[in-house]
Amino acid sequence: MPIFSKYKRTTLLKEISDGKHEIIVWIAKKKEDSIVLRDPSGLKEFKLTGRKTSGLLKQPLETLLWIKSRIKDKELEVLDSKVIHKPYEERKFDYVDLRKISPEEFAKYSPWILRNPKYAASTKLLFLITRYSREFLYGEDFIELLPPMISIVSDPGLRGAKKLRTKYYGVEYELTSSVIMYKQASAAVFEKVFFTARNIREEPPENIKTGRHLSEFTQLDIEWALSDIDDVMRLAEQLIYTVTKLVADKYSEIIYMIGERKEPVVLKPPFPRITYDEALELAKKLGYSIEWGKELSHEAETAVAEYFGTPIWIIGYPVVSRGFYYLPNPEDPKYNLDFNLILPEGYGEVLDGGTREYRYPQVVGRIKMLGEPLEKYAWFIELVEQGGIPPSSGWGLGLERFARYVAGHKHVAYATPYPKLPGITLSP
Amino acid sequence: MPIFSKYKRTTLLKEISDGKHEIIVWIAKKKEDSIVLRDPSGLKEFKLTGRKTSGLLKQPLETLLWIKSRIKDKELEVLDSKVIHKPYEERKFDYVDLRKISPEEFAKYSPWILRNPKYAASTKLLFLITRYSREFLYGEDFIELLPPMISIVSDPGLRGAKKLRTKYYGVEYELTSSVIMYKQASAAVFEKVFFTARNIREEPPENIKTGRHLSEFTQLDIEWALSDIDDVMRLAEQLIYTVTKLVADKYSEIIYMIGERKEPVVLKPPFPRITYDEALELAKKLGYSIEWGKELSHEAETAVAEYFGTPIWIIGYPVVSRGFYYLPNPEDPKYNLDFNLILPEGYGEVLDGGTREYRYPQVVGRIKMLGEPLEKYAWFIELVEQGGIPPSSGWGLGLERFARYVAGHKHVAYATPYPKLPGITLSP
Repeated sequence: MPIFSKYKRTTLLKEISDGKHEIIVWIAKKKEDSIVLRDPSGLKEFKLTGRKTSGLLKQPLETLLWIKSRIKDKELEVLDSKVIHKPYEERKFDYVDLRKISPEEFAKYSPWILRNPKYAASTKLLFLITRYSREFLYGEDFIELLPPMISIVSDPGLRGAKKLRTKYYGVEYELTSSVIMYKQASAAVFEKVFFTARNIREEPPENIKTGRHLSEFTQLDIEWALSDIDDVMRLAEQLIYTVTKLVADKYSEIIYMIGERKEPVVLKPPFPRITYDEALELAKKLGYSIEWGKELSHEAETAVAEYFGTPIWIIGYPVVSRGFYYLPNPEDPKYNLDFNLILPEGYGEVLDGGTREYRYPQVVGRIKMLGEPLEKYAWFIELVEQGGIPPSSGWGLGLERFARYVAGHKHVAYATPYPKLPGITLSP
Repeated sequence: MPIFSKYKRTTLLKEISDGKHEIIVWIAKKKEDSIVLRDPSGLKEFKLTGRKTSGLLKQPLETLLWIKSRIKDKELEVLDSKVIHKPYEERKFDYVDLRKISPEEFAKYSPWILRNPKYAASTKLLFLITRYSREFLYGEDFIELLPPMISIVSDPGLRGAKKLRTKYYGVEYELTSSVIMYKQASAAVFEKVFFTARNIREEPPENIKTGRHLSEFTQLDIEWALSDIDDVMRLAEQLIYTVTKLVADKYSEIIYMIGERKEPVVLKPPFPRITYDEALELAKKLGYSIEWGKELSHEAETAVAEYFGTPIWIIGYPVVSRGFYYLPNPEDPKYNLDFNLILPEGYGEVLDGGTREYRYPQVVGRIKMLGEPLEKYAWFIELVEQGGIPPSSGWGLGLERFARYVAGHKHVAYATPYPKLPGITLSP
């Protein structure tokens, strides 16, 4: 193989202008009198001119070529060319003229679809959001730990979804559905820690319709010893503001390339805070009746967030509704010291967290109440018992949900390459 | 809980000087006439003076306190104090006077051991190496993708170790042991991609003795379309140089805190390159006889690397020894276009990679040869067939191994918090 990385090369978009250029491109589409070429900068359509053109049009789709070309307006004259790689069979899936594609199809054809500039841009957006969210946290003196893939027990408080299991040297382990216990244990040492945690859960298959559930997803999962909910809520606001502002200022072309939003969105804090009880009351006014102690339905949450038109915090959920990790409010122990951040425009929850329960009798009592065997939690319970778990607060930010909102996608599937969707198997 | 994150606070190390200070600390150890306190900056021993001292000494180990103190030399006078959190039981594991600890014990008591400054520093080192390795790659225009935890099939070429399995909506999936196929598929779109991939494999239990095997480990896994082995080897050299230089220049105190090396190491490229055949010849001279076509034993590899005293590249392994991913050298098809990077001082392999096989008949032939069912590879084979996999080269850098070397640890277990070791179950 000749060393093509050393070739002089002009990329198709931005760089190219009238004149002679060497390009390295894939054939994305052949039309009657034109050709669509692709390189990492995107797709570009040319009319072909000159006598060395016909060879090009005989190559199968997705042939990889080096072309010495003369370009004028939208015409490309082939001066010389070499085939770098020729496919064995003609490509079947058309990623150039992508019409409406369902989340299921997106998951199935994801490797091809990423070649479409809209979704290549979505992948880059998720990358940038992940990168700059981390950098924001580094700037706040957080250290990043690498997440476990499996553990004896992953998450005592999982509701609705099912955990995956595996055998590891003959012993049953769980695949990571949350790094909560590792966060709390590490915060006792480093005080400010986070994981870019991949989590996997069997979500109920019908959750594919919510537009915001992936079975495998990424949580930017922070924990901060000795902080209270106010500290970590402000940290989240600053992170979200910093990252959306940066995307808007420096990467707006990605948002335009994705094409779902007219303008980049900047989420400017502080975001309004309402209590769970206030949210229930407001939901009722807006036509959604929720029984006290139950979670707000997605529709009710959407209506409440739409009422404000900005992200909103719902704080102080009833202990009975989602008690496991959270510390009851000492001033009103029916309620937790916890919060959800709800995005506007129907995007729903993107972040949740609160102050953690760290007292020994309470932690043990709750694990028992869930019917979980205490011995599986031995290492964690020992830490709780012997002062190894500090008072702390923290949250998890769903990176794909955050990216979906920034992009404006109709479904979170479109926000990530190779998505795993509720109920869908065998996708790449 | 009072909001301790808002307290004025002096950390124990570096910041503290004679005078009045507010500190937030854990009791790490009580001695006859002194006390060892801990905060995120480390451990510090004080003699206690003044009449409010005795209350402190009655608290159990790992009590978390706010103390208003007057400090003079190594004496601490308690002016005022509050208990923030008091353990339920006395802590049993002593992390202050850590003597020799085996990898197995390290895995078992890892959450406590991290409180020892030596291992807290090791965790920070792994964090810094991960962070700056990523940043180096961002600077080279690589984009980072988030690794899958499971897939239909993870790695066709795994040797020696066993893959873990799970059921996902009733279908058998494999836990990620390599992201090779996702790298190749993504490089066709973005050309330069990487994953910070967590991999898990059941290593043979005896591999705990090699000092360099974790069952769960992190691979900085890059792929670069259209590059050759020379490009990616030089990229690896530059990354390793940049990161070791940065640690030496800016974070040498971490190396001193770990205490295994007298000085930080800077690995300055270019590293010598020898072929597999030359390595065999040299090994023979040094007393290690290896049959042609077999992997070098760890001892032989160590001896060869010691002969040079620097990291060395071994290139061009025989196709029969490790054929799956790699492209045979067109000029001598008995050998691959591949390489291993071997660290000196007995640390062994830290990185491997090469130019990938991307031709349809060859890829299919090799999967068949391994006795693997083709249908599990359907999405990947379809890409190979239809021009979706480009010629590319890449490598995987073992981050914990790299951190182990920079730290100078005797076992890779000590280089990472919460290590999973070959054959060891039930550790946190």
